[in-house]
Amino acid sequence: MESNADTLALEAKRTKLDESNSNILVVKIDPVMSANESQKQVATNITYQKSMIDKLDRMDTFVNRNQTGCTIWFTGLSCSGKTTISFALEEYLVKKRQISTYTLDGDNIRHGLNSNLGFTPEDRTENIRRIGEVSKLFADSGLVCLSSFISPYYADRQRVREIHEKSKLPFIEVYVKAPLEVCESRDVKGLYKKARSGLIKDFTAIHSKYEEPPSPEIVLETSKFTIDECIQKIIDYLEQNELIQSKTNLADLKNRELFLNEENLDQLKTECLEYYQLNINLIELQWLQVLSEGWAHPLRGFMNEDDYLQTLHFNCIKRNGKVINQSVPIVLSCNETDKQNLADKKEVTLKYNGKIVGFMTNLSIFPHRKEERCARQFGLVHRGHPYQKYIFEECGDWLIGGDLHVFERVKWEDGLDQYRLTPYELNKKFSEIKADAIFAFQLRNPIHNGHALLMKDTRRFLLEKGYKNPVLLLHPLGGWTKDDDAPLPVRIEQHKAVLEDGNYLDAESTIMAIFPSPMMYAGPTEVQWHAKTRMNAGANFYIVGRDPAGMPHPDTKQDIYDATHGARVLQMAPGLEQLKIVPFKVAAYNKILNKMDYFDPKNAGNFEFISGTKMRKLARDGELPPDGFMVNKAWNILADYYKNLKQQ
Amino acid sequence: MESNADTLALEAKRTKLDESNSNILVVKIDPVMSANESQKQVATNITYQKSMIDKLDRMDTFVNRNQTGCTIWFTGLSCSGKTTISFALEEYLVKKRQISTYTLDGDNIRHGLNSNLGFTPEDRTENIRRIGEVSKLFADSGLVCLSSFISPYYADRQRVREIHEKSKLPFIEVYVKAPLEVCESRDVKGLYKKARSGLIKDFTAIHSKYEEPPSPEIVLETSKFTIDECIQKIIDYLEQNELIQSKTNLADLKNRELFLNEENLDQLKTECLEYYQLNINLIELQWLQVLSEGWAHPLRGFMNEDDYLQTLHFNCIKRNGKVINQSVPIVLSCNETDKQNLADKKEVTLKYNGKIVGFMTNLSIFPHRKEERCARQFGLVHRGHPYQKYIFEECGDWLIGGDLHVFERVKWEDGLDQYRLTPYELNKKFSEIKADAIFAFQLRNPIHNGHALLMKDTRRFLLEKGYKNPVLLLHPLGGWTKDDDAPLPVRIEQHKAVLEDGNYLDAESTIMAIFPSPMMYAGPTEVQWHAKTRMNAGANFYIVGRDPAGMPHPDTKQDIYDATHGARVLQMAPGLEQLKIVPFKVAAYNKILNKMDYFDPKNAGNFEFISGTKMRKLARDGELPPDGFMVNKAWNILADYYKNLKQQ
Repeated sequence: MESNADTLALEAKRTKLDESNSNILVVKIDPVMSANESQKQVATNITYQKSMIDKLDRMDTFVNRNQTGCTIWFTGLSCSGKTTISFALEEYLVKKRQISTYTLDGDNIRHGLNSNLGFTPEDRTENIRRIGEVSKLFADSGLVCLSSFISPYYADRQRVREIHEKSKLPFIEVYVKAPLEVCESRDVKGLYKKARSGLIKDFTAIHSKYEEPPSPEIVLETSKFTIDECIQKIIDYLEQNELIQSKTNLADLKNRELFLNEENLDQLKTECLEYYQLNINLIELQWLQVLSEGWAHPLRGFMNEDDYLQTLHFNCIKRNGKVINQSVPIVLSCNETDKQNLADKKEVTLKYNGKIVGFMTNLSIFPHRKEERCARQFGLVHRGHPYQKYIFEECGDWLIGGDLHVFERVKWEDGLDQYRLTPYELNKKFSEIKADAIFAFQLRNPIHNGHALLMKDTRRFLLEKGYKNPVLLLHPLGGWTKDDDAPLPVRIEQHKAVLEDGNYLDAESTIMAIFPSPMMYAGPTEVQWHAKTRMNAGANFYIVGRDPAGMPHPDTKQDIYDATHGARVLQMAPGLEQLKIVPFKVAAYNKILNKMDYFDPKNAGNFEFISGTKMRKLARDGELPPDGFMVNKAWNILADYYKNLKQQ
Repeated sequence: MESNADTLALEAKRTKLDESNSNILVVKIDPVMSANESQKQVATNITYQKSMIDKLDRMDTFVNRNQTGCTIWFTGLSCSGKTTISFALEEYLVKKRQISTYTLDGDNIRHGLNSNLGFTPEDRTENIRRIGEVSKLFADSGLVCLSSFISPYYADRQRVREIHEKSKLPFIEVYVKAPLEVCESRDVKGLYKKARSGLIKDFTAIHSKYEEPPSPEIVLETSKFTIDECIQKIIDYLEQNELIQSKTNLADLKNRELFLNEENLDQLKTECLEYYQLNINLIELQWLQVLSEGWAHPLRGFMNEDDYLQTLHFNCIKRNGKVINQSVPIVLSCNETDKQNLADKKEVTLKYNGKIVGFMTNLSIFPHRKEERCARQFGLVHRGHPYQKYIFEECGDWLIGGDLHVFERVKWEDGLDQYRLTPYELNKKFSEIKADAIFAFQLRNPIHNGHALLMKDTRRFLLEKGYKNPVLLLHPLGGWTKDDDAPLPVRIEQHKAVLEDGNYLDAESTIMAIFPSPMMYAGPTEVQWHAKTRMNAGANFYIVGRDPAGMPHPDTKQDIYDATHGARVLQMAPGLEQLKIVPFKVAAYNKILNKMDYFDPKNAGNFEFISGTKMRKLARDGELPPDGFMVNKAWNILADYYKNLKQQ
């Protein structure tokens, strides 16, 4: 008996038996109990040890590795909305968050596990106890268990809570609250009516009491709030308590920024003077801005070779087994002298225009194989391609990876810094204005009414889809562009003019900001970068145009990329599954309607395509485009720019 | 009462109540029951419909989407090995197959759900009934539920089976069988001893009967078989019944072959005469062989544009949400005339050297953007690269995708066809010789003792890891190679000489076969193809060398690829996670030991590197390499080839 003493003591404690009742203790060592005991032993001719897999192993079998097994217990009157909410929550968790869940309710419990229970007070208590135990097992298996039962008695629910607490499994009691009159008025199947007439006996709130939970984790007043609001309340709770990973946890987003804590800046700056000093160029400074603001999450600095190789070969990097889209290399180059000076160093100080902007730690240096990089990133190798010209002529032959630490935000002092918002700041804004869908639109070109038409239509589509407050992230690219693209200040003035005009875009539901990335003209490869960063900024819809990030081939003058490939590659890209892609319909000027319209090949003759080249020519010559092609004020801004350019 | 008639009827049936006992029926409509009923209703101010997610939705939240929720029920005497096997199975399923499982056993049931059950006959029946119900819920949630209980009575187990059958959930009864003497001899914790002495009452097989299952799905005799063998038996059952996806299901592998059924070949050949006839070249015929033998699974023909784009951008294609490695395009080209002739066609006949070899259906035609393809596939664009020379000079400007149907196996009539085994045939062989680990080695170059050393060491490593029968797949590439590579017949003779020699490779545990793919010299991109195909052939270990599939740059004469990138990219490649990569240690000739040895940089002076160029020079000049560099007979074969080449 000695070897079983601990187990027996525990057993006694658990079943709260009087210790003097030793007879029962002996009876407890029975076939089933001993089976359990014996199974802990390793049979003599059996070589495996008892090696139970642990929680983390099991979590690896779920798509959403960050979920935590727990029980969400819905309690409330009949017709209060428990099951409706629980079904809607399950649908949201499974479909939108890919979280493994299981629902216990009357359907699968009453006819099965508890089919042998009646409705005596003891049976009711036992009913809830068993459901509580099964809920605990599901929570232990790693699933989110949704249990939906009237469970009218405080003591019963309290016992279920204790069952979970003993096993250190989260238990969330959700009181689905509605006045009896409301529940009774929802009485679609007439149960309350039958109870009132005596056809049903012992109906909660009619014949027996419903004991309100004194301190539930969540109260949902279904007579005052919509289902969406109720679900959101549960999601908020789960996120705040880290039971499911937050989608837009602002603290996480803030942590993605690589700005140094203000406390010891001076000391760090002094230390920086002792490290090797590396001068970075304008485009590298823009990439430093991109990294430091958190656009390239999960990168925490310029790429090391593992990330670089994964980017070039797979357009993705892996972090903790999770595939994250990253299609363009974000790298810092140096020359042979720098490389030799950094040979045994772990830190480097980064300077732009003579000013220290940050430093890198945990350095690694690897070859900048330019030809191979260009081939894989751009799908062609050509020094006449503007970004490749930069790579071949202005970048060094070595790349430096490491963790980046930045002293302060990169500012350009061009009057537009207020539009340069980080992903954290954008998410915060969206959260403040309670956006329930965010659709992003990027332009590096002047905005005309065809673009505006598309954004307007996307908004209408989202409203039709049931979103209450879809918000447009109007997000022109603000980094380096090739010489003949219209410069950022002109484009921003133009964007503002269209917003002010009010006929095409709804300023109220639009946030205009600047995306600080340089432009690479890398077509289908780059468009993934444009989409991924907007996902980090909070967008869940991304509008993609014809030939995104494309340009003419330096030799053939034809488009480098097939105009359809950008949108197609984007829709198939790993790591972007959460982002819905809204493909651009081709808009052209409808000469009959005198406005921008979706091109209809059947009536091609009615349409006129006004290319960038044509636009530039009109502007330079002081001519006007057809009425309705562009908001007048926006046209004037563009025309002024091209006229000035011509004069220079 | 009418609206509840169906439910009540069902309820009555389930609880087997006498219909005359109408009083009980009325009592059954009680608060809990009605809660269930009311929850099916949509409350008036609540707009969501009851929209339960379906099984497929839930499966999307599991990493292994192909698992099927089911219950594996282990029954048997105390100490028969139930829990040991169930734990080992759980570990295997979770860690090796990423299948979500949950174990019910005494640990989590007796102290929880069934803590209020004693050991009267009724309580025992109730004990098993409840466990059966909970198992069913877990199976319903999509998990593989492992339930491990003595469960001595036939009727109780039968009831659990019925519970599952009613819900159409698979139930697998596993009888863990061992003679009582054996169980009693394993009695580590002395439970049998205590039972014999009367300290424990009602111990199964001592005081009460264990009723053997008359027709369990699986019987495991743990006194005769090892744990590994027992688990394998369960896995085989699960795979055969498609409850988990088979790893090496031979029928599936056979289905991956694209050879036409022999029944209506004549009719199909006649039909082929009516389709447009397309002549394919030698390399395309080799790709047709590769596709038709199933090496490129899941491709069932030359690529369409979606697969082609995914290959070029992500080195992967998706099928049913699953990522499958596919790093090289497998495409069929045609010229402008062919394209126009095929414009509205859905079929095309493929001819090689005037003979019909097969046809394609479900055609799609898309541009062969050669420059972009070469850039993305090879990381350089250069007509001096041998495979690119082929692409630019011998391939058409259009690509044709579609489903491929092949009349018969491609034969080369070179005396080596017997070595050309399909993935199905290789898997079958491995299965027949009961290989428990398969390590693959590919060479396109002559084999020397450095290679042999590595293969020998890999085998030793696998034996040390506990594998009982590791088998080498010696798998030289047999398709097109560039002119200065040693031709296949010479390499095969050489391989055979090394195997016959017996000092370096163990012929008994080696299967030599020919991999029919053409060589592309695409470095890290191509090595993924080499690895993926060997995984399809059954390999779980892949030996990778320095600079795999590399060659000198046509301009610089330096290696095109960084010599370390191949192995690194391979280790990070999506879709190859199941294959373990064995990186090649650099072998060189040790001048002190007079044999091939792993290069030791600390004693670099002791080593001599004998390059391919040097080898060729020695051979041509009739000189011998240092003793121990290569098996003599293998050297003579090579020397003869190069001498003859020189004379020509």
